[in-house]
Amino acid sequence: MNELELIQRLTRSLPANAAVVTGAGDDCAVLDLGVPDALVLFKTDAVVEGVHFTRATPPEKIGRKALARCLSDIAAMAGTPTAALVTIGLPTNFDAEYVTHIYAGLNTLAEQYHVAIVGGETTANPERLFISIALLGTVARGKPVFRNGALAGDAIFVTGELGGSLAGRHLDFEPRLAEARWLADHFRVHALLDLSDGLASDLRHILEASQVGAEIWKSALPVSRAAKIRARAPGGPRTDGAGQGPGACEPGPALPPKPAALAALTDGEDFELLFTVASQDAVKLLDAWRKKFPHLKLSCVGKIIAGEGILLRDQFGAHKLKVHGYVHFP
Amino acid sequence: MNELELIQRLTRSLPANAAVVTGAGDDCAVLDLGVPDALVLFKTDAVVEGVHFTRATPPEKIGRKALARCLSDIAAMAGTPTAALVTIGLPTNFDAEYVTHIYAGLNTLAEQYHVAIVGGETTANPERLFISIALLGTVARGKPVFRNGALAGDAIFVTGELGGSLAGRHLDFEPRLAEARWLADHFRVHALLDLSDGLASDLRHILEASQVGAEIWKSALPVSRAAKIRARAPGGPRTDGAGQGPGACEPGPALPPKPAALAALTDGEDFELLFTVASQDAVKLLDAWRKKFPHLKLSCVGKIIAGEGILLRDQFGAHKLKVHGYVHFP
Repeated sequence: MNELELIQRLTRSLPANAAVVTGAGDDCAVLDLGVPDALVLFKTDAVVEGVHFTRATPPEKIGRKALARCLSDIAAMAGTPTAALVTIGLPTNFDAEYVTHIYAGLNTLAEQYHVAIVGGETTANPERLFISIALLGTVARGKPVFRNGALAGDAIFVTGELGGSLAGRHLDFEPRLAEARWLADHFRVHALLDLSDGLASDLRHILEASQVGAEIWKSALPVSRAAKIRARAPGGPRTDGAGQGPGACEPGPALPPKPAALAALTDGEDFELLFTVASQDAVKLLDAWRKKFPHLKLSCVGKIIAGEGILLRDQFGAHKLKVHGYVHFP
Repeated sequence: MNELELIQRLTRSLPANAAVVTGAGDDCAVLDLGVPDALVLFKTDAVVEGVHFTRATPPEKIGRKALARCLSDIAAMAGTPTAALVTIGLPTNFDAEYVTHIYAGLNTLAEQYHVAIVGGETTANPERLFISIALLGTVARGKPVFRNGALAGDAIFVTGELGGSLAGRHLDFEPRLAEARWLADHFRVHALLDLSDGLASDLRHILEASQVGAEIWKSALPVSRAAKIRARAPGGPRTDGAGQGPGACEPGPALPPKPAALAALTDGEDFELLFTVASQDAVKLLDAWRKKFPHLKLSCVGKIIAGEGILLRDQFGAHKLKVHGYVHFP
């Protein structure tokens, strides 16, 4: 049983109550706690040594990444983060300086986005560092963007560049909070999420929730420089379609080459926005985006179609895309 | 550096914002998100295999305990829980049935207290199961009870019985949600928390926050049957004052004997309420409690005094109590 199958089993029937607007299955839970003009967003996310970082990762970047991942999920609902709790499982013989530096990285990012750190917990996790962040945010009523609103004919967009995040960007990415709020304020965004496991995997969440399919244009994929460099690594491109498995962060030999488009589709940890709008809004959006965010690429990478699954269109035609992204325990 | 010293260092200056009513340092964070008549409570708590349960613990009880600990913290603010997220770090070769049973125990308790489970996360934690719960709740404005309001002269109360929780109760305790709300609704409770690390440790949190001392009457301590049984275990009572250290939950030989009063003061995981009220309210409270909660003991175990630290009064007089409770990594 892989991660998605397990999650499907566990979330089949969860206890609910009148406060729940959206439970498990979107980027954040959405709750109505009675704030007159806002809904509350609620999210947790964990990073684990040997899976999401290594002993060699600078501790400030570990703390930063732990919080940034959660902030990216608030962005994926077009929300604003408010307050976080930090749960930290400490290995035997941890170094207090090291933990202090983790917090320093986390606190700096929190201050940048006006997020309060309101406590948390320390406990023992003898073999490895384990950090779980719980984050609260808000979003104006009527403004949260879910995964289930994509319609056949929509244009599919991604921000930034994809692939090769493991070369460094997974520790330095900026959560797209301002961009997502601007999108929701100025356009009718039909579906939105943040790319954590790779476009080939995360797009399927939108497709399944919206009961549609997609066609992706290979030549339109915004491939990162890191992914292009890896594609040219000695040994020639690998074509087995494998993403990184768990433990990919462990120190080891240099990564084998991987075709750049495949990396853009499957590498994971991009933390860019993936969203759809009606096709008639596409050009207006591209134009307005360029003025508002001149330093961040926005790419139309395909379209929503009737049916299911993903077609990848390249110079030889359109064929069913079989690869997925990162699976946490395959 | 022990846990408390590390936490003190980490929480010395945390990012804050206008939503924060109370940050790190009380049972829950308290946030003002703009709900007209309520404040929001926010809490995380983790349980770790080998520390809080063992491989032999029935999985339903692991899930139950993980959530119950967080619910007890909401009780400690006189609040009402609303929704939880479940983060679970799964060991290599985990069994999906086992995880399903963990959720079953957790869900049953959630339903009992009308708590929605609104998602969470699964990740890898190769060596051991790690469960972190994030919980949201609410409390009427003006009603949350903090730790810093104890006044010299107050009577100190505990619910239930203390000590010996490791014999089984740590997996089966009821969070005192209804009791705490009733207390806050009917009496002016000056300070309140839930006993997680033992009376000798947790009472010090109230004393330090309130800048007062306490005198505890040894003969008034409500010692649990499990603690009395352990005190009579073969080998004679141990008098070194040690609590259980990390790993106390690991399967192993039977626990050595421990004096019952010491167990009541230091065993930890009682998850009963500890609170203070003005002495003139004490008898009225005991009387009203007996009618409202006839099946749950309420004991006046001492009084708040000027000064600092804890005096323990027994048949030989009052002497400074040196022992503390459970320390997570001494």
